[in-house]
Amino acid sequence: MYPKSLQTLIESFRSLPGVGEKTAERYALTMADKDMVEVERFAQALVDVKTKITHCPICGNLTEQEVCEICENKERNHKQILVVQSAKDILALEKTGEFRGTYHVLNGLISSSKGILPEDLNIDTLVNRAKDADEIILATSTTLDGETTAMYLSKLLNQKCPEVLVTRIAHGLPSGGLLDYADEMTLMHALTNRKKV
Amino acid sequence: MYPKSLQTLIESFRSLPGVGEKTAERYALTMADKDMVEVERFAQALVDVKTKITHCPICGNLTEQEVCEICENKERNHKQILVVQSAKDILALEKTGEFRGTYHVLNGLISSSKGILPEDLNIDTLVNRAKDADEIILATSTTLDGETTAMYLSKLLNQKCPEVLVTRIAHGLPSGGLLDYADEMTLMHALTNRKKV
Repeated sequence: MYPKSLQTLIESFRSLPGVGEKTAERYALTMADKDMVEVERFAQALVDVKTKITHCPICGNLTEQEVCEICENKERNHKQILVVQSAKDILALEKTGEFRGTYHVLNGLISSSKGILPEDLNIDTLVNRAKDADEIILATSTTLDGETTAMYLSKLLNQKCPEVLVTRIAHGLPSGGLLDYADEMTLMHALTNRKKV
Repeated sequence: MYPKSLQTLIESFRSLPGVGEKTAERYALTMADKDMVEVERFAQALVDVKTKITHCPICGNLTEQEVCEICENKERNHKQILVVQSAKDILALEKTGEFRGTYHVLNGLISSSKGILPEDLNIDTLVNRAKDADEIILATSTTLDGETTAMYLSKLLNQKCPEVLVTRIAHGLPSGGLLDYADEMTLMHALTNRKKV
C-alpha cells in the first residue's frame, strides 16, 4: 500500500474526468517529486477557485467579479446574445476575436438520455434578457442534445419575444475537412446550406 | 480570458505529465463544480504528500514513517532484495502477494539518452545492503535503459560482493500474449529461456 497521504491524493486525482487508477498514481507521484512552492500554489489555486469564482448573475459566465468582464464591458453589443452550453465555449469564441456581442451560458443541454430538463438550465434569465435584445444566436453543439436544445430555445424565444431575431450557427464541413471523412449529417448540412460564390 | 484563479489552476494541472491545455481546462472546470469539502481535501492531500512523505533511508520506498513498512516488517526476508526503478513498481509487485523479501528503489534508470549516470541513482546504498544479502533480484524494466541498468548492476555486484547471488527477472511472452503480436526481442527471449515441461 502507498502511504496514506499519497493514497488520498490518488483518490482525489481519480475524481477528475477520464482519470483512471494508473494515471492518478502517475499524477500523485509527480506531485510528490515537485517543489514545495509549486505544490502549495496548486493547493492554493484549488481553494481559490472555490472561494473566489462565482457565476455572473447576468450571463452565467465564470467570474471573480460581481458581474463578468464581458457583461461589464460597455463597448460590447449588449443587444446581441450568443447562447452556449458552458463557460468553456466562451473562451473558444473569444479567441477568434470575431464576436463583439455578449454571451449566455446555459450550463448544460436538454438531454433525454441524461434526464436533463429545460428547467435544470439557465433559461429563465435568457428569456428575460431576450426581451431587450435584437438577436439571440444559438451556438449549442451540433450534437443530438445540442440540436434539441437549440430547437427548444428557438420555439420558446419566438413565442415569448416574437420581435427578436433568433439565429443558429452554421452547419457544414469544418475548415480543412476532407469530404470523404465527413459523416452523412455533415455532408447533408453542407449541401443544404450551400452558398452562391 | 478565464478568471485569474482558474487560470492559475489550469497552469498547475498543465504541469502534470501528459496533460495539455484542453485537458487542464477540463480538470480545472471540474474542480470549480465540486463541493468545497472535496476540493479542500484535494488541496490538503497535496500539501500532506509534500510534508509527510519521505524516502525510506534503507530501501528508498515512499513512506510516512521513519523506515517504510516493508523494511520494518520482521517477517519478511531481509536477505533477499528486489531492485526496482521506482516506488510505483513496489505496489505492482506487492499486489501479486508472491514476494516476501524486501525492495530497493533505484529512483530511475541509467540512460545515455537522458544523461542519467549510475551516480545519480540510489546504488551506493544497494551495494552496502548487498553485502549482508543472499540474493539480489534485478527487476528493472525490459527496455533498453532497464537492461543497461541491470547489466551495470550485475557486473558491479558480482565484483563488489562475489558471494551474493544476482538474478534477473524472466523475459518471455506476457500472460495472455498472442504469439503473432509479440515483437522479435520478446519472441527471441521466450525461445531462449524455454523450459522443459
